[in-house]
Amino acid sequence: MRILLTNDDGIYAKGIEVLYTALSKEHEVTVVAPETEQSAVGHAITWLNPLRVNLVNRNGSFFGYALTGTPADCVKIAINELLDQIPHLVVSGINLGANVGVNVIYSGTVSAATEGAVLGIPSIAVSIDAFEPTDFSAAEKFIPKLVNMVGERSLPPGVSLNVNIPNLSAPEVRGVRVTHQGRMKSLERYDRRIDPRNHIYYWLCNSLIEKDADPSADSSALADGFISVTPIQHDLTSYPMLDGLKGWDL
Amino acid sequence: MRILLTNDDGIYAKGIEVLYTALSKEHEVTVVAPETEQSAVGHAITWLNPLRVNLVNRNGSFFGYALTGTPADCVKIAINELLDQIPHLVVSGINLGANVGVNVIYSGTVSAATEGAVLGIPSIAVSIDAFEPTDFSAAEKFIPKLVNMVGERSLPPGVSLNVNIPNLSAPEVRGVRVTHQGRMKSLERYDRRIDPRNHIYYWLCNSLIEKDADPSADSSALADGFISVTPIQHDLTSYPMLDGLKGWDL
Repeated sequence: MRILLTNDDGIYAKGIEVLYTALSKEHEVTVVAPETEQSAVGHAITWLNPLRVNLVNRNGSFFGYALTGTPADCVKIAINELLDQIPHLVVSGINLGANVGVNVIYSGTVSAATEGAVLGIPSIAVSIDAFEPTDFSAAEKFIPKLVNMVGERSLPPGVSLNVNIPNLSAPEVRGVRVTHQGRMKSLERYDRRIDPRNHIYYWLCNSLIEKDADPSADSSALADGFISVTPIQHDLTSYPMLDGLKGWDL
Repeated sequence: MRILLTNDDGIYAKGIEVLYTALSKEHEVTVVAPETEQSAVGHAITWLNPLRVNLVNRNGSFFGYALTGTPADCVKIAINELLDQIPHLVVSGINLGANVGVNVIYSGTVSAATEGAVLGIPSIAVSIDAFEPTDFSAAEKFIPKLVNMVGERSLPPGVSLNVNIPNLSAPEVRGVRVTHQGRMKSLERYDRRIDPRNHIYYWLCNSLIEKDADPSADSSALADGFISVTPIQHDLTSYPMLDGLKGWDL
């Protein structure tokens, strides 16, 4: 298959190299990824500025296009402009840090997959539940298998898969659980500081995490040592609220 | 009520001034908005850089906090750090340009409302279907009414309202339609240019628009001269795909 590979930690990140190596054994992989880290950019696209693309040699491991934009930009410009042929699949990751619960809405990694799905291409986002992982063997084993299954079975239009891998080696992983996006939230606060010019500035800090009591939630699977696979889509409508709202005298 | 007012076109945009004037007659309105235009930032939050906040006098019409961040950042820092009390309502807008169909996923305006809802506060996003509107009378009439209804009835946890106003005067508007997020997409292409240093760069261009055949879609309401009100939420799970995926041998 022809696979478009992107990420949100940037073309020089470890996670994209792991996926390139794992997927290029069987597939034709083209990398289009942000030039620099784009964490928490959500579904941002570059609208007010132009984009530049540079072909880079990623430390000898692969050639790829480095884009001065976001993960969603990478997918858009790859498909509309850079690639000669439409890819069979978009894969985004491996992101360092899980993309589960409410935090999925901030994820550039997931948004790249959503963008692929919007453009009609089966897409997979991959994250690992660690910021400094040392063992990618679980992803190296599972993602090529999942890629082949998606290639065979495809996905419904507009649907992509959000995969989260626990920070365990392949033999330690307890299995795979199909999950829904849960309610886990980061507990956030701002750290207020004074700069050397006596001006105030703020850092967003994530401290504790609220656990999700629901075992079928994405974060619960990770906590239990399972790979979580959540099918996601981009219709934000609250269908349960539609009828209620029709009763309002608007 | 105490209302937190933000937008994605920036604190100096026309749309936020219109809402400030309309809502401050009856409510205590605090403005926390981006210092500069943040169109198409989606649900981006500022993670890799610190934020700065400046109290600015908006051309004599109001004082507000101007933030070096995104609309979602504005809501987060207002509620966590800047405001003495939790607001009763978050209002985001008026965005110039409709936020309907697939494009909702790119919208900073909508993301500010989603962020409010995630933080437990009833929230409303407001956009007008024009890039250079001259008549805001429909929004000036409808939004204060909607704000009072939401104040009385509240919204379910996690749900916010995405309101789109047609580019018509108040008497020309044909009514209000409760809608779902439709499938309308922009047709996109990239304009490839050469800079004076002979380097290639690309502009994202939106040209034609695919129409939505479904009359209950958000964009159809606008096309028919109605205000559209879509209840939205942030769970991206594709529930119809959950059972199908459980049948895969993952």
